[in-house]
Amino acid sequence: MPLVRISLSKTGPWTGSGRRIGEVVYRAMVDTIQVPVDDNFQVITEHDSEGLIYDADYLGVRRTDGFVAIQITLTEGRTVQAKQALFATIAHGLRRELGVRPEDVFINLVEVKKQNWSFGNGIAQYVEARREPAASPS
Amino acid sequence: MPLVRISLSKTGPWTGSGRRIGEVVYRAMVDTIQVPVDDNFQVITEHDSEGLIYDADYLGVRRTDGFVAIQITLTEGRTVQAKQALFATIAHGLRRELGVRPEDVFINLVEVKKQNWSFGNGIAQYVEARREPAASPS
Amino acid sequence: MPLVRISLSKTGPWTGSGRRIGEVVYRAMVDTIQVPVDDNFQVITEHDSEGLIYDADYLGVRRTDGFVAIQITLTEGRTVQAKQALFATIAHGLRRELGVRPEDVFINLVEVKKQNWSFGNGIAQYVEARREPAASPS
Repeated sequence: MPLVRISLSKTGPWTGSGRRIGEVVYRAMVDTIQVPVDDNFQVITEHDSEGLIYDADYLGVRRTDGFVAIQITLTEGRTVQAKQALFATIAHGLRRELGVRPEDVFINLVEVKKQNWSFGNGIAQYVEARREPAASPS
Repeated sequence: MPLVRISLSKTGPWTGSGRRIGEVVYRAMVDTIQVPVDDNFQVITEHDSEGLIYDADYLGVRRTDGFVAIQITLTEGRTVQAKQALFATIAHGLRRELGVRPEDVFINLVEVKKQNWSFGNGIAQYVEARREPAASPS
Repeated sequence: MPLVRISLSKTGPWTGSGRRIGEVVYRAMVDTIQVPVDDNFQVITEHDSEGLIYDADYLGVRRTDGFVAIQITLTEGRTVQAKQALFATIAHGLRRELGVRPEDVFINLVEVKKQNWSFGNGIAQYVEARREPAASPS
């Protein structure tokens, strides 16, 4: 159910690697916040230096042209601890798999109700089916 | 008040049809969730296969390169039933008007407070005017 | 902590001015809603006329090809008054600094919890450190 938006620099080291970055983000979500297997929907864009703006030092974190902004819209209700695990797992996974500097990994979560998703066919798949009244035995 | 983001495949059947898709989404919002007439603001982007990622089978829904991701930011407060009507009306409208496979229509809603919009002039148009104390009769 | 998305027309007067527009938005956030200095993260995109859709007259506001859509994801909790000050300061700043028509400035805020941000290193920097039990004096 998450919709992930990943923004990269066109002139940095991750040009052309957006899809691999997205795979790491997807697996981290499955591993830490119970996102279902195969629930993988992403929009990945590359930007020139005029299109992707980051502060090079906010909170004392040194960012470079390898900066990656990840915005994840997901169903509400994860605990703070689960979110912390997600952040750590994404950053560690990106370092391990691609060599992304952890300082360059910016993540933001946007939470929505579970009724706010349709995965096709015009249906809100996460809404419980209405309970039909049981057929009368008589 | 909604801000609609539509993401399409550049190599699929809907290249160049984003605006028509957006019109169907707009009319569905007017018809099902009381979006005011003319309240139509959209950002439509096309992506190559590295930029628009979808699972081809999540929840048993078969998706193709005709996949369309629609993310709608709107004022909070619609009922579940209204959201279900919106999803169905978008999917049915896209099939009827453009031949989009309903399986390929992914929709996500992000809800915000009504005070979170400015439609120009630096004003929060949906905030009620402050009530001025009535002039004293004396 | 805000993540700002700015969408401009490629054929309008602000092509190539996205970064300057973003600077005005950033300063307005610092001045009106206590966004920390250097907390500046933005994604700026330019679109052709098929990619950026706006109603030319919704709510009686006359919009032109100089239309600028600004969507700001930020931590929840600002008052209505603070948001109104933000909207006004952005619109006035864009007019003063670049000559943007205030009618062309569309703004939307998306609010999230403070735990929903990671500014690098896989850490949720806005989450309070857990209090460790004080070492026993005995």
